[in-house]
Amino acid sequence: MSVTAPAGFEASAVAAGIKGSGSLDMALVSVVGGRPVPAAATFTTNRAAAAPVLVSASHIAATGGMASGVLLTSGNANAASGAEGEDHAERLCRQVAEGMGVIAAPGCHPGHHVLICQTGLIGVPFPVEKASSCVADLVKGRAGDAEHAAMAARAIMTTDTVPKEVTVRAGAFTIGGMAKGAAMLAPNMATMLAMLATDADAQPDVLQEILREAVSGTFNAMTVDGCTSTNDTVVLMSSGRASGPAPSADALLAAVREACAVLARKMADDAEGATKTALISVKGALSDEEAARAARKVGESLLVKCSLNGEDPYWGRIASELGTAGVQFDMDRLSIFYGGTEVCKHGVSIPYDTEAVAAHMRNRHIQIDCDLGLGTGAAEILTTDLGYGYIDENRTTS
Amino acid sequence: MSVTAPAGFEASAVAAGIKGSGSLDMALVSVVGGRPVPAAATFTTNRAAAAPVLVSASHIAATGGMASGVLLTSGNANAASGAEGEDHAERLCRQVAEGMGVIAAPGCHPGHHVLICQTGLIGVPFPVEKASSCVADLVKGRAGDAEHAAMAARAIMTTDTVPKEVTVRAGAFTIGGMAKGAAMLAPNMATMLAMLATDADAQPDVLQEILREAVSGTFNAMTVDGCTSTNDTVVLMSSGRASGPAPSADALLAAVREACAVLARKMADDAEGATKTALISVKGALSDEEAARAARKVGESLLVKCSLNGEDPYWGRIASELGTAGVQFDMDRLSIFYGGTEVCKHGVSIPYDTEAVAAHMRNRHIQIDCDLGLGTGAAEILTTDLGYGYIDENRTTS
Repeated sequence: MSVTAPAGFEASAVAAGIKGSGSLDMALVSVVGGRPVPAAATFTTNRAAAAPVLVSASHIAATGGMASGVLLTSGNANAASGAEGEDHAERLCRQVAEGMGVIAAPGCHPGHHVLICQTGLIGVPFPVEKASSCVADLVKGRAGDAEHAAMAARAIMTTDTVPKEVTVRAGAFTIGGMAKGAAMLAPNMATMLAMLATDADAQPDVLQEILREAVSGTFNAMTVDGCTSTNDTVVLMSSGRASGPAPSADALLAAVREACAVLARKMADDAEGATKTALISVKGALSDEEAARAARKVGESLLVKCSLNGEDPYWGRIASELGTAGVQFDMDRLSIFYGGTEVCKHGVSIPYDTEAVAAHMRNRHIQIDCDLGLGTGAAEILTTDLGYGYIDENRTTS
Repeated sequence: MSVTAPAGFEASAVAAGIKGSGSLDMALVSVVGGRPVPAAATFTTNRAAAAPVLVSASHIAATGGMASGVLLTSGNANAASGAEGEDHAERLCRQVAEGMGVIAAPGCHPGHHVLICQTGLIGVPFPVEKASSCVADLVKGRAGDAEHAAMAARAIMTTDTVPKEVTVRAGAFTIGGMAKGAAMLAPNMATMLAMLATDADAQPDVLQEILREAVSGTFNAMTVDGCTSTNDTVVLMSSGRASGPAPSADALLAAVREACAVLARKMADDAEGATKTALISVKGALSDEEAARAARKVGESLLVKCSLNGEDPYWGRIASELGTAGVQFDMDRLSIFYGGTEVCKHGVSIPYDTEAVAAHMRNRHIQIDCDLGLGTGAAEILTTDLGYGYIDENRTTS
């Protein structure tokens, strides 16, 4: 059921010809009936943000976070497309709103109640006519069953090898979601998109705070190549149609965070060309912020990622990265563990069970723990290895 | 002649068995006669700095920048080696000083006048006995001819395929130097070492300022993988034995900078596994600092480096990196040029001579110019492509 699992949501997908392959490349997720409901979104911090990011952000602002649906397209990012790109995104939003019969809030036009997410090539004009000609079918094709949700999840795939869906049931309410990968991405499609829906009742400002919090510990604690896309977007809509009273903010946050964590893990595990997923955990930092910075420096290190690819527990590289992370660091207090086995203590090599570590390094999932020995700050980051696959995917756009 | 080209310097090299291959792995560059002369050094900013870095920095401080020679070893970085590693480095410096008959300045012991640079595996105990047993031969073998300088340059090589030497003659004085590569390095030997000598007369504080300035525009404006080694060191010694008056600080800086630039370019061109060297130039930034930050973000981007490997002028990735560089950025003002051909103007794609750009991308040396269109800040960075070779070199230490 995924994105349509919570009460009050429908989905549809079509192949508009944006992708050369003829695969599904446009999806719509909307609230049943079309009346705007609370919606929240987080966007890329890239200052070269794409047209759909600028348009969606302005729609959230114009409506105070009230949306009827989200249009998602894949195959062309509509990025580096200038004012024309924004016009194209606006036009599609208006068309969807008109098709759905959205009645606008005072001061808004119907298109303001539709958000748009796009992913694909940067700097190539978006084929707006192809997309536009399919909006009517997309609107007409919506349904609330699992099959339609699955079609929508497939329509946002780029180099993902499997669609990524999640359903979290939390007592009286449900979270459903879908995402496209962020890891070891194709040349052109390095964007992470996630669409979450819930039937829990929540006001737009609460929803926004919950989404921000959930994303920071999940999607934002994942790195593949340190590149922040022009198009990254996560949307959360709330139909409020669950039976019973609205959940507490904490209960809703826990469920949203779980849904995000599941999708983030699915992205890392489906990283094209990647053979390893590693959880880098740093503790003993002066603060959580310093721990997060240190974990990210290790997780983004090409040398560390190459070692993961080679199943080599070369902790010296981890120590070296921690030393350049821009955080308080004392080599004499450093400990490093692979799969729970300590290999470095007080900053120097110690005898350890090499067979246990070698066996751990052969796993798909690797756990690396670093203890800076200075304070109580802790953080984690999810990363992948660097192998031929990443290069094959990214060396040319053709 | 390289490092012995300036008057007053000798060099030697031996195979001490630190490298398993039996190749040359220890070198000594020293001033003729052994009387300490002005010396300056810049070191890695890594907080996990290796024993030789800590020891050399303390020696420079103790003597106020007066050194008789520099010992260089390869095959083991003596990093993450704790207090014992520092003892080993100190012991070798003392042994060299005693062998050379160095007479210490008041308050110093002779070993303080010797600096030490080491490169190789991190976290593996340094075979100090092997090294120690060869110091006498190293001291005895010194000579001022080109052959001995070349042997020293070979003794610091790790995965470099050619030794890197430079000689710059500037009127009455000369700069000579040697370096080991920083680019696409072997699993264990990611350190950049450079040893420069001059016969120009200069006081230690002037020498230090000149070295800092020269390094910042050359070695520090080069990136391969964004990793800062535990052992990076650049040393400059001045014998003062050139005939005629001391050059102006500006004249000396110009010559030192040229020597550093030549060595930096040789490192990038000899990057193992790399097929391209690219100069990323950013102008139109609000300040030189912002330009440098933006150029580094582009130069360190895995996606940009993969595009270089694939000879793909995919400027959208460059725009995306500039947008996340943490500098003032306005997509509508951005221009990007490959080999002088403009491919992006006002942030969007423009028609261009695709054959000219394709031909440029096939070159070994690629030029990418970015104009942010905001101010007068400018900077450059040298980078390499990312291909299979980097992964082959770095996935395992065995």
